[in-house]
Amino acid sequence: MLLSEVAGKVGLTFSGHDLEIRGVNTLVSAGEGDIAPLLSPKHLREFVATRASAVLCDAAHADAAPAGRACLVSANPKLDWARIVTLFAKPQGCLTGVSSQAFVHAEAELGEGVTLYPFAFIGARARIGRNSTIFPGVYVGEDCVVGENATLYPNSVLMAGTILGDRVTIHAGTVLGSDGYGYAQSPAGHVKIPQVGHVEIGDDVEIGANAAIDRAALEATRVGAGTKIDNLVQIAHNVQVGRHCLIISQVGVAGSTKLGNGVVLAGQAGLRDNITLGDGVQVAAQSGVGQDLPAGSLAGGSPSMDAATFLKVGLTLPKLPELMRRVRRLEKALEAVEKEAGRE
Amino acid sequence: MLLSEVAGKVGLTFSGHDLEIRGVNTLVSAGEGDIAPLLSPKHLREFVATRASAVLCDAAHADAAPAGRACLVSANPKLDWARIVTLFAKPQGCLTGVSSQAFVHAEAELGEGVTLYPFAFIGARARIGRNSTIFPGVYVGEDCVVGENATLYPNSVLMAGTILGDRVTIHAGTVLGSDGYGYAQSPAGHVKIPQVGHVEIGDDVEIGANAAIDRAALEATRVGAGTKIDNLVQIAHNVQVGRHCLIISQVGVAGSTKLGNGVVLAGQAGLRDNITLGDGVQVAAQSGVGQDLPAGSLAGGSPSMDAATFLKVGLTLPKLPELMRRVRRLEKALEAVEKEAGRE
Amino acid sequence: MLLSEVAGKVGLTFSGHDLEIRGVNTLVSAGEGDIAPLLSPKHLREFVATRASAVLCDAAHADAAPAGRACLVSANPKLDWARIVTLFAKPQGCLTGVSSQAFVHAEAELGEGVTLYPFAFIGARARIGRNSTIFPGVYVGEDCVVGENATLYPNSVLMAGTILGDRVTIHAGTVLGSDGYGYAQSPAGHVKIPQVGHVEIGDDVEIGANAAIDRAALEATRVGAGTKIDNLVQIAHNVQVGRHCLIISQVGVAGSTKLGNGVVLAGQAGLRDNITLGDGVQVAAQSGVGQDLPAGSLAGGSPSMDAATFLKVGLTLPKLPELMRRVRRLEKALEAVEKEAGRE
Repeated sequence: MLLSEVAGKVGLTFSGHDLEIRGVNTLVSAGEGDIAPLLSPKHLREFVATRASAVLCDAAHADAAPAGRACLVSANPKLDWARIVTLFAKPQGCLTGVSSQAFVHAEAELGEGVTLYPFAFIGARARIGRNSTIFPGVYVGEDCVVGENATLYPNSVLMAGTILGDRVTIHAGTVLGSDGYGYAQSPAGHVKIPQVGHVEIGDDVEIGANAAIDRAALEATRVGAGTKIDNLVQIAHNVQVGRHCLIISQVGVAGSTKLGNGVVLAGQAGLRDNITLGDGVQVAAQSGVGQDLPAGSLAGGSPSMDAATFLKVGLTLPKLPELMRRVRRLEKALEAVEKEAGRE
Repeated sequence: MLLSEVAGKVGLTFSGHDLEIRGVNTLVSAGEGDIAPLLSPKHLREFVATRASAVLCDAAHADAAPAGRACLVSANPKLDWARIVTLFAKPQGCLTGVSSQAFVHAEAELGEGVTLYPFAFIGARARIGRNSTIFPGVYVGEDCVVGENATLYPNSVLMAGTILGDRVTIHAGTVLGSDGYGYAQSPAGHVKIPQVGHVEIGDDVEIGANAAIDRAALEATRVGAGTKIDNLVQIAHNVQVGRHCLIISQVGVAGSTKLGNGVVLAGQAGLRDNITLGDGVQVAAQSGVGQDLPAGSLAGGSPSMDAATFLKVGLTLPKLPELMRRVRRLEKALEAVEKEAGRE
Repeated sequence: MLLSEVAGKVGLTFSGHDLEIRGVNTLVSAGEGDIAPLLSPKHLREFVATRASAVLCDAAHADAAPAGRACLVSANPKLDWARIVTLFAKPQGCLTGVSSQAFVHAEAELGEGVTLYPFAFIGARARIGRNSTIFPGVYVGEDCVVGENATLYPNSVLMAGTILGDRVTIHAGTVLGSDGYGYAQSPAGHVKIPQVGHVEIGDDVEIGANAAIDRAALEATRVGAGTKIDNLVQIAHNVQVGRHCLIISQVGVAGSTKLGNGVVLAGQAGLRDNITLGDGVQVAAQSGVGQDLPAGSLAGGSPSMDAATFLKVGLTLPKLPELMRRVRRLEKALEAVEKEAGRE
């Protein structure tokens, strides 16, 4: 693709002469025919030394571009880089059409242009939207609804009644609609409360590999449109996740907890059940949140506190043993002073 | 089903007139023909406003039931709710019988009434008990034994020699009998100690999605009858889990650790290897337990301490930076006093 | 196998008379025909009481071996035990050859001696090395390269372009090459940055069950030769893991972070993105590492500190509430002293 085409498609102008762009690469590894981005000033050294034929950067760094390189100047290089990579990325997979080695229930419906790989299973009354792709080993249970242009990667599982919007991507091994963890206590042991709700995933949601989102006890566990969930995340029954949230790897959200829109949960954070996090809340990695958090708040620590305090606590904590010794010294010194005073 | 039938089946009496119950629902969403439960006094407001045709509650709240609604009164509403939902829940799946698209080894044995979905694999000498259901993509390795009325959801994996009791449920993507993590050090690197033990799961155990329970190095990793394990839990080799334990999502239990009966491990807690937790121990979320805990003890924190102390530490910790400043002030003040005293 | 053969194969001599060894077992459970090891002095009591026909121990404990038992004496009992168990372990699986129920793309290449189970999928241009075994439900995407003598356990997934060395073992449900978690922010929401890199796994690497290793945004996420990764571990895009590392269950390593050789990350530890851990770094369980760590350092805590300090902090932390009270008492006492002094 000519650089002029690339520029046209992402709506940028470029300096330098036009040339054929063969691929995208990092500043360090790029060579003849590659385009590479400067996404952080930290990489300025690699930028000035790159052998890429073309570069992408913001206006402030355009002058630093190596001589002779074509340069696309962007007001938002990361976003434009996403668009450029999209031009060169090819979707995964090597088959099209509906494999005769897949299982499709007689009462299931496949939209036009659906790709169904061998060993995929589509249950009764399930409906797969147009142009969606279902990889090997995927299970789509009865009464599921998958929107258009969805991608279900290998061995992902949609238990009965799961509903996915359009352009949803589910990575390999992820399970949607497994039973919520709900038991009543009886003298004979834990008695299962059957989980008769389901899972609803909004448009443009992406969910990483080997994650698990449980069906609701009743009604629905919901993930709002545009939310992105990383690998190995646990979303328990009845959780309500807002729109455009970012939930990083290994986070766990316990039952019935509600996240507003634009919430960010960093890696390995845990949220207890039945709490509410307002819009735009950000939670630091490994935090344990046990109570409601108002919109816009930043939290860290386990148990969590406001992020600024957590930062200070983190700096102070290593000095705790020394603090203990200092207090002991103070106590002794004060005792001496008191004795002294008493003697006088 | 008539309300009188529902009441009869769970052994409750009801006030109000009999009516057809079509389904179970929440207090908020229930309508004509639904039954809905009051499971916590926190939902009293929703209770008095519900449009459910029938409600379930304890004796103390029966008078608050909305006028004209039939009311089942229960001494243990959560338990009776579990039983009522069970009456209305239908098992997942849309096929019965043994699919010709499944693989069954010539030396495997399937009990009467077994359902085997397409793309399930049953290895040599594996035995599947009566009325068990095995979903697509399940792997049952050689010499496995699955009890009666078991459910293996899609893509769950039983490596060779795994033994499941009766009425066991394994959710999608869960792996039982993967190799324990055992290596010996040599000058050439880590040398694998082959893991030749197996996994034994007791009756009525339920294990969530995408969990992993490793086979023992020798002998067996065991999970006792009635224990319920949530999604994404890790149980390492040679661990012995007692009966009726509750192990919440993302917990990790390291090798050879022993849990008594009725142990509760909250989400993301971690237990080191080779320790013993007595009967009824409860561990708070995200705790890290590094030593034996006596029966009945409550622990929290990482590293863990007794739960009451942990609660106080959690409240105190945010004040640590301020404490440090106060100690510094004390030191200066005391120095001044001492100087003063010296001068005198 | 005769004990003399066992001894010969692992290069040890033995005392006592030769006998037929039927299997390996623990000191406690071993019986007639078994060999059992003393791997820690903690088990001396079980050692002296074992009914094993033969034992393995170090020179220091050979005299304590029960009378009449044959005894192999080893300078490194754990390593020699690994070798002995290897003699008796049989590989999992019950089929050989290429199943007609597997899917092999016309452009894929299978080496000599490859075993391919039913319901395995091999994509276009994928190459499987000699004597490798691919279990049911495995997905090998297009352009993948699997080395010789590799084992891919059931339902493991290699997304397009994943490269595995020789003798690699991937346990059930593990996903290699899922998309990295990369988005650019736009007014319309999170815009996916297509992940066009891949994953490279070195020789002799073993990866546990239900783990996830993401492909790089560009170039490769790499795991060095001889590294052993446990269940449910998350390795994000562009991470570089050195050789002979040990990464225990439920660890998470965020994007672009680099581990040297011989790094040990204990269970549930988390590493932030874009940091570097030098050779031989050891990180305690549940730690949260937010910065570079020099070679050979030991770290613990969240946020992490040096391990010796962390140990002391862990011992001091439960006393924090009491420390707070002591400081309050000091403040009052000092105030009294000051008042007293003022009055004088």
